[in-house]
Amino acid sequence: MRALRKTAAAPGAELVEVPVPRPGPGQVLVKVHAASICGTDLHIYEWDAWAARRITRIPMTFGHELAGRVVAVGDEVHAPVVGAFVSAESHAFCGHCRMCRTGRAHICENLRILGVDLDGVFADYAVIPAPNAWEVDPRIAPDVASVQEPFGNAVHTIFGADGGGDLELATVAVIGCGPIGLFSIGIARAAGARQVIAIEPNDLRLGIAKRMGADVLVDPLHEDPVAAVVEATGGHGAEVVLEMSGIASAIDQGTRMLAHGGRLSLLGLPTAPVALDLSDQVIFKEARIFGVTGRELFRTWEQTTTLLGSGMVDVTPVITHRLPLDRFAEGFEAVASGRSGKVVLTP
Amino acid sequence: MRALRKTAAAPGAELVEVPVPRPGPGQVLVKVHAASICGTDLHIYEWDAWAARRITRIPMTFGHELAGRVVAVGDEVHAPVVGAFVSAESHAFCGHCRMCRTGRAHICENLRILGVDLDGVFADYAVIPAPNAWEVDPRIAPDVASVQEPFGNAVHTIFGADGGGDLELATVAVIGCGPIGLFSIGIARAAGARQVIAIEPNDLRLGIAKRMGADVLVDPLHEDPVAAVVEATGGHGAEVVLEMSGIASAIDQGTRMLAHGGRLSLLGLPTAPVALDLSDQVIFKEARIFGVTGRELFRTWEQTTTLLGSGMVDVTPVITHRLPLDRFAEGFEAVASGRSGKVVLTP
Amino acid sequence: MRALRKTAAAPGAELVEVPVPRPGPGQVLVKVHAASICGTDLHIYEWDAWAARRITRIPMTFGHELAGRVVAVGDEVHAPVVGAFVSAESHAFCGHCRMCRTGRAHICENLRILGVDLDGVFADYAVIPAPNAWEVDPRIAPDVASVQEPFGNAVHTIFGADGGGDLELATVAVIGCGPIGLFSIGIARAAGARQVIAIEPNDLRLGIAKRMGADVLVDPLHEDPVAAVVEATGGHGAEVVLEMSGIASAIDQGTRMLAHGGRLSLLGLPTAPVALDLSDQVIFKEARIFGVTGRELFRTWEQTTTLLGSGMVDVTPVITHRLPLDRFAEGFEAVASGRSGKVVLTP
Amino acid sequence: MRALRKTAAAPGAELVEVPVPRPGPGQVLVKVHAASICGTDLHIYEWDAWAARRITRIPMTFGHELAGRVVAVGDEVHAPVVGAFVSAESHAFCGHCRMCRTGRAHICENLRILGVDLDGVFADYAVIPAPNAWEVDPRIAPDVASVQEPFGNAVHTIFGADGGGDLELATVAVIGCGPIGLFSIGIARAAGARQVIAIEPNDLRLGIAKRMGADVLVDPLHEDPVAAVVEATGGHGAEVVLEMSGIASAIDQGTRMLAHGGRLSLLGLPTAPVALDLSDQVIFKEARIFGVTGRELFRTWEQTTTLLGSGMVDVTPVITHRLPLDRFAEGFEAVASGRSGKVVLTP
Repeated sequence: MRALRKTAAAPGAELVEVPVPRPGPGQVLVKVHAASICGTDLHIYEWDAWAARRITRIPMTFGHELAGRVVAVGDEVHAPVVGAFVSAESHAFCGHCRMCRTGRAHICENLRILGVDLDGVFADYAVIPAPNAWEVDPRIAPDVASVQEPFGNAVHTIFGADGGGDLELATVAVIGCGPIGLFSIGIARAAGARQVIAIEPNDLRLGIAKRMGADVLVDPLHEDPVAAVVEATGGHGAEVVLEMSGIASAIDQGTRMLAHGGRLSLLGLPTAPVALDLSDQVIFKEARIFGVTGRELFRTWEQTTTLLGSGMVDVTPVITHRLPLDRFAEGFEAVASGRSGKVVLTP
Repeated sequence: MRALRKTAAAPGAELVEVPVPRPGPGQVLVKVHAASICGTDLHIYEWDAWAARRITRIPMTFGHELAGRVVAVGDEVHAPVVGAFVSAESHAFCGHCRMCRTGRAHICENLRILGVDLDGVFADYAVIPAPNAWEVDPRIAPDVASVQEPFGNAVHTIFGADGGGDLELATVAVIGCGPIGLFSIGIARAAGARQVIAIEPNDLRLGIAKRMGADVLVDPLHEDPVAAVVEATGGHGAEVVLEMSGIASAIDQGTRMLAHGGRLSLLGLPTAPVALDLSDQVIFKEARIFGVTGRELFRTWEQTTTLLGSGMVDVTPVITHRLPLDRFAEGFEAVASGRSGKVVLTP
Repeated sequence: MRALRKTAAAPGAELVEVPVPRPGPGQVLVKVHAASICGTDLHIYEWDAWAARRITRIPMTFGHELAGRVVAVGDEVHAPVVGAFVSAESHAFCGHCRMCRTGRAHICENLRILGVDLDGVFADYAVIPAPNAWEVDPRIAPDVASVQEPFGNAVHTIFGADGGGDLELATVAVIGCGPIGLFSIGIARAAGARQVIAIEPNDLRLGIAKRMGADVLVDPLHEDPVAAVVEATGGHGAEVVLEMSGIASAIDQGTRMLAHGGRLSLLGLPTAPVALDLSDQVIFKEARIFGVTGRELFRTWEQTTTLLGSGMVDVTPVITHRLPLDRFAEGFEAVASGRSGKVVLTP
Repeated sequence: MRALRKTAAAPGAELVEVPVPRPGPGQVLVKVHAASICGTDLHIYEWDAWAARRITRIPMTFGHELAGRVVAVGDEVHAPVVGAFVSAESHAFCGHCRMCRTGRAHICENLRILGVDLDGVFADYAVIPAPNAWEVDPRIAPDVASVQEPFGNAVHTIFGADGGGDLELATVAVIGCGPIGLFSIGIARAAGARQVIAIEPNDLRLGIAKRMGADVLVDPLHEDPVAAVVEATGGHGAEVVLEMSGIASAIDQGTRMLAHGGRLSLLGLPTAPVALDLSDQVIFKEARIFGVTGRELFRTWEQTTTLLGSGMVDVTPVITHRLPLDRFAEGFEAVASGRSGKVVLTP
């Protein structure tokens, strides 16, 4: 079969022929129908400092956003069955640490990640742990099923904090409108936000933000996002800020645009320590800052299924590119350029 | 009457004779029984950069931790009545902003503070807004009644976040054992913490920490507090960290000693922006950081009354100095030296 | 001025001339623009067993849902000012009991109610406590402003329980589509419910339920509402049930249509004890039952203002009758008949 | 081996010789060290109406509270290993229903119970599902390890509702001081309750309640428990009521002794519908009623381990009888008589 692999500790990747893997005990083999590109994949592809430090297995197939059909199961697998159409939770959890035992497997103390620590899904076939397979609701189109993983990041960012009870009727500011930011806009809209403000310098993405339901569009290169949010909220600031960019200055601005008592959820990963004015922007305002990672297993997947299956959110505006696997270079270029929403590869 | 006043924009203060103030509409006049010294008062006394920037009214009587008897009431005051023995909430709230109207008057958008924005309580008599007077439970000794205000900071830090439901059975690390940190240790113990770790370089304070119920004492000058917490928790980290020092490096350490999914409450006020490793210490761990200020009005005061009135917490080990008002210089010296817990002035 | 009064402990009411009342200290006088009829008013009008037991002041002006303009203020009133257009919170709270002091004034231990314990608003002018006046957002039409009070009941029923964090993406069943039930449908829809099921035997009200956004309409006289909800939820039951009828059998059905872990909020007032199958319908399912009364002061009013002011919910389908005050008999008849939504009287 | 079995649909049980069972895939074989008697076991032993309706497999070994050593494991079992000393979660969950997939396996839609639906643990050896085995913390004495299961019921009753954030500083009333009620007293005390009131007619159990930390003891045969709780709380009522008796009149009293805004947790199982005054005792007071069943998997077991392993709660006063398995009749008699706390059988 074909697999897109990192074959050297250097930029780029190679589409090579490798044997179809065999599912071991507790694993399933999936014939890949769609595999979408995540920002993490771009880091690995470009082999930046993070990737050079984080990726220790080479050669390795990468990619972790998947939809496909189960074609074989290993020993000890009771579900899913052969023939099931599944998406994949990309976080493999140990199942026995304190986090796993108390319902927080997504912050497992021994987490391993598909396409990072384990062989990934940019290939004709992929092996995944059976507990990581999530059966795709038949109301969800196969071609959008692979984006449930990053969509789940957005769901978890929004609902993770106290069930999202602070989102309803709130002004929600979304900083950074990559695919997860764009999904967040649609979810916030569906989940009862009063007003959604999208902050993003890329006009193509700002246009998609509008289609996803943003009420106010802010280009931070042309206007001060803090001032824009303060103005749009009658001077109060936003009750909820979702930080999807990972940019230090944007995180700092996130704290400044927060209302008293507001919530800042951090999903974007900064590459260096970030200096924050904790006294004035966090302590005196009694702001709450939540780190967010992954998806709650499997509450987030249930919510994702509801949102996508019921049509509460339509993700089609976000998917801008569908390319065959062998045009992967074009796909990564689209992601790198920012002239894209989500890019889906189809083996 | 005598009043301890800032009479110049410079270090120090003067005990001067001034007329007894008259309570205006909605205000009460209190004969001061005890007034304790807060770290904020020391900033004002020493006239550091913060005080120089923040204090705009001079001359002004300062001090804001009070217990005393109501001796006169202004117009429109229905409670408290003359003769009541009261303590004072130091945060004067507007009552009509969005925070006040939604049960969050302690983060009022128009907050003014006794002894900072309004004349304070280091005097024979003090005027306070009637809604800020809290009748002292008769089971609480008059001489400890003035510390209810800072004790309330500790209560609110502990219980503010989702009702403190994450504190029970948790390992709680307290960074900084000034009076509020010391109170926190006693409260955490009373409120069902499994283990309390006190982190403080001052050995006198560490000794009080032990008397307040700390299980593990860590002197950060002699051992790495992050390593100490990790070791005391079997490698997991503390579920709850209460940051009472305001020191940048300590806040950074606070994030590093947190368990996955843990909570870091920030009460200590750093004087400059603080750089945090958000990716590894907050996002991947799904840590929650809460800014904390003041006391919930008046839920915190109810809780304080319960804790002190029922004897669940005994604050007497924390009160190290009781001095007549005219020995204020000695009191401030004791606070500045760190060779003290709480210092109470008695007019 | 004219006032609709109970002048005898018997069915009916009289529109009589009385002097315009004068606002005492802490009170304001409102020229009534609109006053809507609540189910409670019908009980008083018809003088049923509840009214005969509960109402102890006769003669008394009744009615408690109000919108109007402040024309005079008593002593000690700083807000609202003369000229303000206000609605009224109908629950007068003492301000000093433990509930009031801890942010729960709506369940004040010394609660008094406008039009029940105090003279009410079916009149040309009404006196209300100043703290109970809520300035009407200018985006809300004066003619719908009086329904903010019962709309607030619906808001509080939905959002009161843990901030409504369980409502998002949930199936919500509303039992009883009087005005508050109808408002609830619109709010649940705006607040991110996945599916709203309306249960009501009256076809006029079921028609309004559909206009308010109900997805599934159930007439309990013609089909089993428990079976209908179970079917509409793929066998799981509804995550949230809002009980607005007060009918014993409907409350019992409410527990039976709940999903495992679901929430039943009780607002409708049964007139006698209700027998529930606690073992199978509450304990084994880990259901949560919440009593609901009034509105959180004033969080609910903020939420109401957002929902109505921003256009997230349109209440005009619910207001079926607008009548001059002297046609009150017609209004009560419309309420009694059930051939109505909300009936608004305009002096 | 010996096994205590129901061999007929009639009162009593027989200790019979049966083959040692073999663990199937996903199961482990445990050599039983201790097995304690639950109220459910008494129902089965006495063959009351509930048992006659609920138990469909005869002959069947019963009992579900276990501690013992793993002596063999079936296929597909990775943990626990042979030699591990384990206790058992008695609720076997399907792992694939909506509850299981969203972290609520304890209210699994396909729940089966050890000793009820599956062969139980009153025997020399028992087979249990591997995921139901919980390794006993070495700080917990083997002879008390079997009571972790009912202790967990108490833990879950207390902490299940919003993390127990309402328990701290609260007055907690415990209705019914069988073993789970007695455990609850110790846990409430450890978890920061201000005052614990025990309500129980049996003086032996009331004596144990005192040893577990109850502040107020109420014998409902000699004084009105509602009046006693109201008096002990200065007229306010208890913020938290834990109902462990399942008696209809006691549940009704539970609602009447609740403070405004209080929480009533129901664990005791009534045998028939219970009539409650919902209007005055639940709705107007905004009470919250929580059904409680089982233990959160495995958060409750972590909490149990902390409470017992750290010595925060000492359960030894509750264990009144330790008997060899062949004296089972004596054990059941002790449970039936009420002249006992927990009865532990040791094969």
